[in-house]
Amino acid sequence: MKEQGDVRYENVIVSTRIRLARNFADYPFPNRLKDEASAREIIRLVAAELNTVDAFTLYHMNALSPEIAESLKERYLISRDLIEHRRISAALVSFDETISVMINEEDHIREQYFMKGFELRKVYERISGIDDIIAEAIPFAFDETLGYLTACPTNLGTGLRASVMLFLPALARSEQLERMIVQLKRLGLVVRGCFGEGSAAEGDLYQVSNEVTLGPSEAEILSVVEQAVNVIAVEEFKARARLAEEGGVALKDRILRAYGTLTNCLSLAESEFMRLAADVKLGIAFGMFDGSMEALDDLIVTLRPANINRMNGFPLGKEEQDLYRAEYAGKALRGMELLTETKRKQLFPRG
Amino acid sequence: MKEQGDVRYENVIVSTRIRLARNFADYPFPNRLKDEASAREIIRLVAAELNTVDAFTLYHMNALSPEIAESLKERYLISRDLIEHRRISAALVSFDETISVMINEEDHIREQYFMKGFELRKVYERISGIDDIIAEAIPFAFDETLGYLTACPTNLGTGLRASVMLFLPALARSEQLERMIVQLKRLGLVVRGCFGEGSAAEGDLYQVSNEVTLGPSEAEILSVVEQAVNVIAVEEFKARARLAEEGGVALKDRILRAYGTLTNCLSLAESEFMRLAADVKLGIAFGMFDGSMEALDDLIVTLRPANINRMNGFPLGKEEQDLYRAEYAGKALRGMELLTETKRKQLFPRG
Repeated sequence: MKEQGDVRYENVIVSTRIRLARNFADYPFPNRLKDEASAREIIRLVAAELNTVDAFTLYHMNALSPEIAESLKERYLISRDLIEHRRISAALVSFDETISVMINEEDHIREQYFMKGFELRKVYERISGIDDIIAEAIPFAFDETLGYLTACPTNLGTGLRASVMLFLPALARSEQLERMIVQLKRLGLVVRGCFGEGSAAEGDLYQVSNEVTLGPSEAEILSVVEQAVNVIAVEEFKARARLAEEGGVALKDRILRAYGTLTNCLSLAESEFMRLAADVKLGIAFGMFDGSMEALDDLIVTLRPANINRMNGFPLGKEEQDLYRAEYAGKALRGMELLTETKRKQLFPRG
Repeated sequence: MKEQGDVRYENVIVSTRIRLARNFADYPFPNRLKDEASAREIIRLVAAELNTVDAFTLYHMNALSPEIAESLKERYLISRDLIEHRRISAALVSFDETISVMINEEDHIREQYFMKGFELRKVYERISGIDDIIAEAIPFAFDETLGYLTACPTNLGTGLRASVMLFLPALARSEQLERMIVQLKRLGLVVRGCFGEGSAAEGDLYQVSNEVTLGPSEAEILSVVEQAVNVIAVEEFKARARLAEEGGVALKDRILRAYGTLTNCLSLAESEFMRLAADVKLGIAFGMFDGSMEALDDLIVTLRPANINRMNGFPLGKEEQDLYRAEYAGKALRGMELLTETKRKQLFPRG
């Protein structure tokens, strides 16, 4: 198996995320939690434990504007379900936004840890640390045979979902990806767009995660995900090499024009931004640009609609959002200095 | 009448060109000039006179490669007809390319003077100076009633054609231009694309010139052209004001994207270059960019296909030409510094 954090994964693997679904033994599951006092008690207990570890912001979902809630969702910190359960739900988010604990979503808690890059083991260690602290203070609903009990049977057992976000521009352009998705499904893995179930793979971003939580151990789940990601990454690299060769001048031209548009346009819709950013990232992968994809991946999250509203201070209409996005993206990309005069020279045959 | 050289014409009027058609009394007209020795004698006589005025390069058309001939034509220094008459024809071109005298085209000589901007009077004075010098040395075929005799009756009389090149992006987008062309025709004026008869108006460039040479005096011809250009320029300014208002964000966005593409693309076909350059020039007219249109107008001439071949040293295929054009245009436009960070800021509503 390849070493995680290997430099060769740098332009394929965006981030790693693990979440654990847990319920407390002494409280009814959230869908039966009619009593708002109990819901508030759970929130208070979890918050008290987490605040011994790190600085967390507590968001009571019923006190949150739809814009702020949506912006948390865009940053992968909360789920749509948590927003829908707003009567009783809350979220605890660490200052650096690497840890988020959703409370009273489908389960009492959904603990999530996030890291950039391919970091399954580190992420698992860290989320386990959080999990242990909570478990010591508030006993989890646990069955010797079934493992952790969850509201939905698909989360039973380990309650663990490991997700790796991958940037697959070359595989997405070939027919290979569809075939791989079918094969991965047989291994209990699922491939989705970047916003999870049912979301399209905008910006060529795909999430690979385990579907099965019951049966295999945590270590086995991580190992299967790790191996699958390895295989996908290797295939993506091969597909990129073919693409670079077959794409020729037209592909490089498209990538450079994407950069030209991003650094100069006045108005930029989200879907176009995702498409152009994916082209520029492919240019980084091809060595056409200096710099790393990470800054662009951050920018993609930063410039989602609700987050723009949050940064702006008040909600904007679609047209104003597109102006905001164009200005922000242009400034950010020009600041990245992806394309020096030296680098430009190398792109032309006359040198 | 508006003063010529007025700053308000700066972004409408590209250049002024006057040509005089002349024939020598002592030689048969070129179409009857079977004798190559006489043709060479005419070339020698004209060259001797002109070399007393300025440093001229003499191009014997039959000794010129098709690439160099085409590149002279692209720079408006010679005509297609001169190339076709290559057995007996030649051209004398001044070092700065403002004066060109075609010899043994349809007429014995076609003297042309070119200046940037709206300079009908200056151009007329200068070409008359050249004309006088030749007339003193070699008598012209002249008839008291008909004036200067020419091969084609459409050039009889003054033998003068005054042409003004205009950049009309706003009128071209309205239906107004078609109506104006019909009205101008009644005044004996003709509007053509930038390469004369039958050429399309690429890059929104139009030539206005007199069709009638017999009847009115030189002064009257210049006056009619001058007045017509004044009217067209005023209408173009009005149309631009309307366009700026109605075009809104979408128009500005298109202009900025054109700039982004020109400064970054890897491959650029001529027609796309003309279109994008016209958008950037419109941006200059709208005050979105710093700088003047002149540098862009020069670039349009510089990057015509045969001129690229001339600069490259040997002919390139279409694909290589498009790479050459993209590299050259990108470097030139980045060097113009049309868009400073201060200027960019002003384009966005948040400032």
